[in-house]
Amino acid sequence: MPLIVQKFGGSSVADAAGLRRVAERIVRTQKAGNQVVVVVSAMGDTTDELLDLANQVTTTPVGRELDMLLTAGERISMALLALAIGELGVKAKSFTGSQAGLITDAMHGKARILDVTPKRVQAAITEGAVAIVAGFQGVNRATGDVTTLGRGGSDTTAVALAATMNAYMCEIYTDVDGVFTADPRVVPAARKLDYVPYEDMLELASSGAKVLYIRAVELASRWHVPLHVRSSFSTLPGTIIADPTHPCMKDISMEEAVITGIATDKSESKVTVTGVPDKPGMAADLFEAVADAGVNIDMIVQNVSAENTRLTDISFTVPTEQGPIAVAALRDHRQHLGFDEVILDDAIVKMALIGAGMRTHPGVTARFFAALAEAGINIEMITTSEIRISVVTRESALDAAIRAVHTAFGLDSANGEAVVYGGTGR
Amino acid sequence: MPLIVQKFGGSSVADAAGLRRVAERIVRTQKAGNQVVVVVSAMGDTTDELLDLANQVTTTPVGRELDMLLTAGERISMALLALAIGELGVKAKSFTGSQAGLITDAMHGKARILDVTPKRVQAAITEGAVAIVAGFQGVNRATGDVTTLGRGGSDTTAVALAATMNAYMCEIYTDVDGVFTADPRVVPAARKLDYVPYEDMLELASSGAKVLYIRAVELASRWHVPLHVRSSFSTLPGTIIADPTHPCMKDISMEEAVITGIATDKSESKVTVTGVPDKPGMAADLFEAVADAGVNIDMIVQNVSAENTRLTDISFTVPTEQGPIAVAALRDHRQHLGFDEVILDDAIVKMALIGAGMRTHPGVTARFFAALAEAGINIEMITTSEIRISVVTRESALDAAIRAVHTAFGLDSANGEAVVYGGTGR
Repeated sequence: MPLIVQKFGGSSVADAAGLRRVAERIVRTQKAGNQVVVVVSAMGDTTDELLDLANQVTTTPVGRELDMLLTAGERISMALLALAIGELGVKAKSFTGSQAGLITDAMHGKARILDVTPKRVQAAITEGAVAIVAGFQGVNRATGDVTTLGRGGSDTTAVALAATMNAYMCEIYTDVDGVFTADPRVVPAARKLDYVPYEDMLELASSGAKVLYIRAVELASRWHVPLHVRSSFSTLPGTIIADPTHPCMKDISMEEAVITGIATDKSESKVTVTGVPDKPGMAADLFEAVADAGVNIDMIVQNVSAENTRLTDISFTVPTEQGPIAVAALRDHRQHLGFDEVILDDAIVKMALIGAGMRTHPGVTARFFAALAEAGINIEMITTSEIRISVVTRESALDAAIRAVHTAFGLDSANGEAVVYGGTGR
Repeated sequence: MPLIVQKFGGSSVADAAGLRRVAERIVRTQKAGNQVVVVVSAMGDTTDELLDLANQVTTTPVGRELDMLLTAGERISMALLALAIGELGVKAKSFTGSQAGLITDAMHGKARILDVTPKRVQAAITEGAVAIVAGFQGVNRATGDVTTLGRGGSDTTAVALAATMNAYMCEIYTDVDGVFTADPRVVPAARKLDYVPYEDMLELASSGAKVLYIRAVELASRWHVPLHVRSSFSTLPGTIIADPTHPCMKDISMEEAVITGIATDKSESKVTVTGVPDKPGMAADLFEAVADAGVNIDMIVQNVSAENTRLTDISFTVPTEQGPIAVAALRDHRQHLGFDEVILDDAIVKMALIGAGMRTHPGVTARFFAALAEAGINIEMITTSEIRISVVTRESALDAAIRAVHTAFGLDSANGEAVVYGGTGR
């Protein structure tokens, strides 16, 4: 009997009506002849409410206790979901991360999974029950302490269980219909993609697409777990993310796939350091100072040095909330680094064009820049990879930029030829 | 270093301010030179809110899942309390019932403690931390499933830990100042008792005093754990409950202790069966029918049979919510039992006068009934034990009845000679 892992996010189980709706879907899946393991997040805003309570009693929360607190959220949702399934006459058993064998390291708040030993989960589904597993949480074997996996933790739990238990499919239920060629709120003509290879999804996720966390996609890719991202509010198929060689991806190779989609990310700021002496090791010193302050650097661009001055400008992007930390760290090292000044700019946005097809299709880059130029958009930074071109532009110019590129690459759904993957549907 | 177990109820930790106040008290206790193990209930109305959610998704909750759900309540309060203590610069570690070694049977919703193996709790206090343990919950070793202990479960957890860890004192913090001679809301002159022996406390608790659950008192009595019932809103001493031979009870034998207090219970209804044939085995058949319906019987009174008819009336009290069940069960057996009719009366109240001294003091019963008669109160049922007299009367007459008896036995605090136990205080 095939095993399906189904993950439901907080918005899908925000209230009793949501829990009942999700319970019905789970029961339908089981009655269709599948074994079902469900991974569930905390209801609605529960996690934020618990964090708010923690902030009311402490300014410096201890990780072990914060994890103990936050894991109460999934405990509530998973038990309620098991009760709702029981009400439909189907046996359901809920398991904490610890009970489900999610073994992690001891890094509270961002634990990594070391091993998955889902003996009790397996026993439950073997005896015909639906197994409900708390997302986002695990246990450290050495200390016996409860841990949490950090952002996107429930997706990670679902993929890890699907990998270990050799699931046929890992379904990620969310409040959107799937993965789109661009954000439909910005580009009304954006199309839902039927299939996306892991590689493209990794680029989409790391370029700002919110539908899946990059960590879960990485894990799925490494263990070859096919993902199905779909809406918990409809029964329509969503987007399958898998190896191009996976049976469910069979239509893809028949198509001339070029561009998967456009992702945007407003969560970064640009730091520009001017008048940096252009000598060996200077960039290393500069980024060491930033890294020592715990700041994550994303894109980096170094200008060509002006020949007469031997001074250069270096720009890089960081998460907006870390911008001031990066600036302070650099100013602390100003004497040693010898630059002119540091400028922080948080009105920028990152846009990425993604598609595994572009590496074999010359002219993609040119068409991309031409579309931006025609729309009058100024590009401030550029980086590229094999299957991605990212640019930084003004936040105010974003919507025009996306629409221009979306149209230029024939992604608009009004355009009958704009099919990217397996346009015949499933 | 002496070990103090401190139990805080939901009203003591209802919000962030309550958590901070409790944290300060715990830290003060530790800094005074004690090891401290804390047992905490769920915050405020959390348990009721979780039950309400469960009722929204199911009409027939599965015990295992309901326990999983409810245990989230203490998980939240204990983690927040540990964070609040950490904020005061003192190390604190929280433990679930399972982590604290509260091993129970598999009776979900009303599990009994089989064993306590608080290895991790002991390790935490040995290394100088405050240990916070979730009240009300345990784990079944055979299934690995989480269980709850039922009503008063957090008191039971505290006493069980205090017994196993050989605590010097088990402090039960609540929203009242201690155990009183009567309910202060009814009898303004009611006095707080400084000491109460287990035996009297058992009768008080089983006669309706809400301050402690009978199960926790039984456990404390069996394991000789001294209890200190006191307010979390003040630093005044409360009421010590211990063996009369315990060092802290040394004043007691010096006093002429007669009456401890008066307890009332409005939670019962009276069932009267009229015209029961007065022949051997009839009462057994009648109560078997009631017991088979799962109804708990408290007081029983059988009238003298009228000689000419050989028919009698039998009255008994049951929890009000079980009254209709008892009546239905009897009516189902009416033909076989051959009685006239069943009358259900839920406007009754039970009042009990309690005191270990009464067994050696003749005249207590007489004075009790005289006081009730003078106040014009009609007695409907009477039962007695060695240290208790219970009567059933009209609910509307209750307040007058309590005040009359309270005064008659010199319990009023205005009366300088009304001291019952160790009037010199601690």
